[in-house]
Amino acid sequence: MTTTNPLADLTDYLSESATLGEVGALVAWDQETHMPAAGAGARAEQLALLAGLNHERATSARLGDLIQACEEHSTLNSDADTMADLREARRDFERATKLPADLVTQLARMGSQGQQAWKAARANNDFATFQPFLEELLVLVRRKAECYGAADNGELYDPLLDEFEPGATAASIEAVFTPLRGRLASLIDEVAENGTAPDETPLQQHIPTDRQHEFGLFVLDAMGFDLGAGRLDTTTHPFCEGVAAGDTRLTTRYNADRFAEALYGTMHEGGHGIYEQGLPKAACHGLPVSQASSLGMHESQSRLWENLVGRSRAFWVWALPHAQRIFGGAFHGYCVDDLYRAINTARPSFIRVEADESTYNLHVMLRFEIERALIRGDLEVADLPCAWNQKVQEYLGLSVPDDAQGCLQDVHWSFGIFGYFPTYCLGNLYASQLMDAAESQLGDLAPAIEAGEFGGLKTWLNEHVHRHGRRLRAAEINERATGKSLSADPMIRHLEGKIRPIYGI
Amino acid sequence: MTTTNPLADLTDYLSESATLGEVGALVAWDQETHMPAAGAGARAEQLALLAGLNHERATSARLGDLIQACEEHSTLNSDADTMADLREARRDFERATKLPADLVTQLARMGSQGQQAWKAARANNDFATFQPFLEELLVLVRRKAECYGAADNGELYDPLLDEFEPGATAASIEAVFTPLRGRLASLIDEVAENGTAPDETPLQQHIPTDRQHEFGLFVLDAMGFDLGAGRLDTTTHPFCEGVAAGDTRLTTRYNADRFAEALYGTMHEGGHGIYEQGLPKAACHGLPVSQASSLGMHESQSRLWENLVGRSRAFWVWALPHAQRIFGGAFHGYCVDDLYRAINTARPSFIRVEADESTYNLHVMLRFEIERALIRGDLEVADLPCAWNQKVQEYLGLSVPDDAQGCLQDVHWSFGIFGYFPTYCLGNLYASQLMDAAESQLGDLAPAIEAGEFGGLKTWLNEHVHRHGRRLRAAEINERATGKSLSADPMIRHLEGKIRPIYGI
Repeated sequence: MTTTNPLADLTDYLSESATLGEVGALVAWDQETHMPAAGAGARAEQLALLAGLNHERATSARLGDLIQACEEHSTLNSDADTMADLREARRDFERATKLPADLVTQLARMGSQGQQAWKAARANNDFATFQPFLEELLVLVRRKAECYGAADNGELYDPLLDEFEPGATAASIEAVFTPLRGRLASLIDEVAENGTAPDETPLQQHIPTDRQHEFGLFVLDAMGFDLGAGRLDTTTHPFCEGVAAGDTRLTTRYNADRFAEALYGTMHEGGHGIYEQGLPKAACHGLPVSQASSLGMHESQSRLWENLVGRSRAFWVWALPHAQRIFGGAFHGYCVDDLYRAINTARPSFIRVEADESTYNLHVMLRFEIERALIRGDLEVADLPCAWNQKVQEYLGLSVPDDAQGCLQDVHWSFGIFGYFPTYCLGNLYASQLMDAAESQLGDLAPAIEAGEFGGLKTWLNEHVHRHGRRLRAAEINERATGKSLSADPMIRHLEGKIRPIYGI
Repeated sequence: MTTTNPLADLTDYLSESATLGEVGALVAWDQETHMPAAGAGARAEQLALLAGLNHERATSARLGDLIQACEEHSTLNSDADTMADLREARRDFERATKLPADLVTQLARMGSQGQQAWKAARANNDFATFQPFLEELLVLVRRKAECYGAADNGELYDPLLDEFEPGATAASIEAVFTPLRGRLASLIDEVAENGTAPDETPLQQHIPTDRQHEFGLFVLDAMGFDLGAGRLDTTTHPFCEGVAAGDTRLTTRYNADRFAEALYGTMHEGGHGIYEQGLPKAACHGLPVSQASSLGMHESQSRLWENLVGRSRAFWVWALPHAQRIFGGAFHGYCVDDLYRAINTARPSFIRVEADESTYNLHVMLRFEIERALIRGDLEVADLPCAWNQKVQEYLGLSVPDDAQGCLQDVHWSFGIFGYFPTYCLGNLYASQLMDAAESQLGDLAPAIEAGEFGGLKTWLNEHVHRHGRRLRAAEINERATGKSLSADPMIRHLEGKIRPIYGI
């Protein structure tokens, strides 16, 4: 292969691939927000065609040649940024080409069938009908992990985790999770034994959804999410889609009698959206630097805005008068502490996505332990419900009434996604550690938040997290930004410092 | 090339091309309805990439081979439907491959520049700044027509017109337009000299746009537009996008003080949408039969619902109580005839898109004559404003005050679209002739319309127009459905029969 400027050619190639990816992202967004029901059949074909075109480009010999030419081009080897982009381009290419086509097809087919089987099994609370699908999926997922290559210690979970959290390992996750579990359990015990639960009636006001939408846009704008380069729409399962440069789309859902769902959902997706808007997507189009570092780091940005900003007392000092104005009469008679306490209720529950800030991580930990055991072969699928229920009893002190509220509650495994769950907890950990670092560098943020001034925090995140894209691994971003390796201490301190006073402990 | 089943292979190929086209349609729809402003740059790249992929597929040697193999496959030659699909596939392939790549690129670039120049020229009422762009565009458009090949009589306009209205010629258009012009002029003179204009205040009620939207959906549903397989959104320049099987998207715009704009815009796009929904897009995916016959026939469907249904007295018998209910108090005190008369005001005006049913066709005719003269070389671009103003004086009896309200009002020429305008008038003619035929076969439709029963008419259109797709030319669809070749008589009878009584003539 001859090329006079391999980096320019590679950049063009990746840019065109990214454009095709943007089209797919938009088509997927539309499916969840605007597509009429009868369009589903044609939409599946559209997405399959785009996936095929993307896979072709991601595994083409031409791409391999361009990456190799860049790697061999001596003058590129001195630029750290270029080297980091090449490292990531190589990583993507290797991962894409390591899987045989028949495995990709089988995984896609089984994932689709598994998801259908899971839906029915959850609806009927019938694990047995789902079991054979999960068993078959596990065979394929293990084969996938083997294609990627197990870790040196033989841990087959690592290459799966590495897909979502590059550089992380099961062992490194375990090292953080194990001590964290004990401390969270103690806090929850304290609350259950000695705490006085807050009054939750402020959360049960009837607030028309169009008012909630207006308030959501108002908060997003204050956070620094650029609504001229993004949108907020309604969907069933909220998500953020960073479609393209200048086009970041958030979704939420409204419940007229539980405004906090949409508000915190919107702030959560807004955090993802601010990360997407902070990536150099126009300037470095298609290059790895224009992409997020990891799912864990992405989740840290959503959790930071949702929990560390949105569930702070300072936030409600600022937000309450605006909520009173926009919501009409709904909040008159409530003070800041009424809201602050209500939105920080801590109580073990069965469903992860409804869990509060304190108990949420325990939900994640038990999934991590179970899916790791499944991949290792230490746990049989048939024994999954039993193992699940035991862990829920042990970690959350609850007796699972049925599998629909137990091991059938999450969609992930049903389409073959293993190694994803830990990123939810990593996100919480990174969020607290980053927030601590921001405050140690910028000073106490509470006065600014009370004044609705979020710009300092957003700019700090732009500078210390977003702009690096994938040039740095998530762990490295965290270390550079905070001066320390990942630790559970900031999150524990944050939770204890908040929950104990609220519960009068 | 070897293939055991060339028709199956061609069908697969065209189906995949159609899927790619659907993606492009969705991306274009989103640009006009939901895209944040800052997404425009990335969007242009996305659309350009998709256009490139489409062009590649539309001109590939493989497609040519597949079509040829089908044409040579003796068993296919006896099936009229297959032959018709092959004829259209061949037509598309020939047209796509006849244009050299450099001409396509130049036309796209000049079209984009021309449109920018036109916007500025119209805003500043400055034809001179637009003139050089239009001159350059005409050189390219003439070259394009030459690539397609002039008609036997040397008429270079014909291959341009043929792009939008397959089978039509300038001579055939002229033969219909010339007598029509005289009769329309007489009617307009009558109205101006002896008529009493209706009271238009019923159209000037203040009606909140969300009420207008609800009414629009109500009317669409009654018309038979399947809202489970389509949507209605808001945009600046309303259009209908038949994205895919089960996914037809209408757009409209709202003016709180002029409800008729959105209502008739919605019924117009609804007519297009019912045509799209009536095409066999799922059963014959990608085949020409799943596509509309021509722009003129498409416009006939929109005009039929907008004017022949929506501006009838029977429609308001049905619609008024629903409008009163949905619009709140706005229409109380008005009777059916107040609305019927107001929405049928006939008055010459400068702007085509705001013209009433009677004068609209004169706007189209003068554009047809002018663009034909430009393509022939009988008219210089420099003389366009003068020629325009003369024709407006002659046809509409108005003195054009400036070019912004004259020859600069339409966007089409600015991006190189010539041969499109006649389809607007053809649509009106087909609409009246089809409506006459429907009534002669189904009986007087007024009682059904008064009862809000539109199903008989819709089913008749499905059967006589929609299901043929492109297997029949528009003129042939019209002839088979109505038993007669295209004639202006039904439209003239319709207009005279409506306008004279309203104006007390």
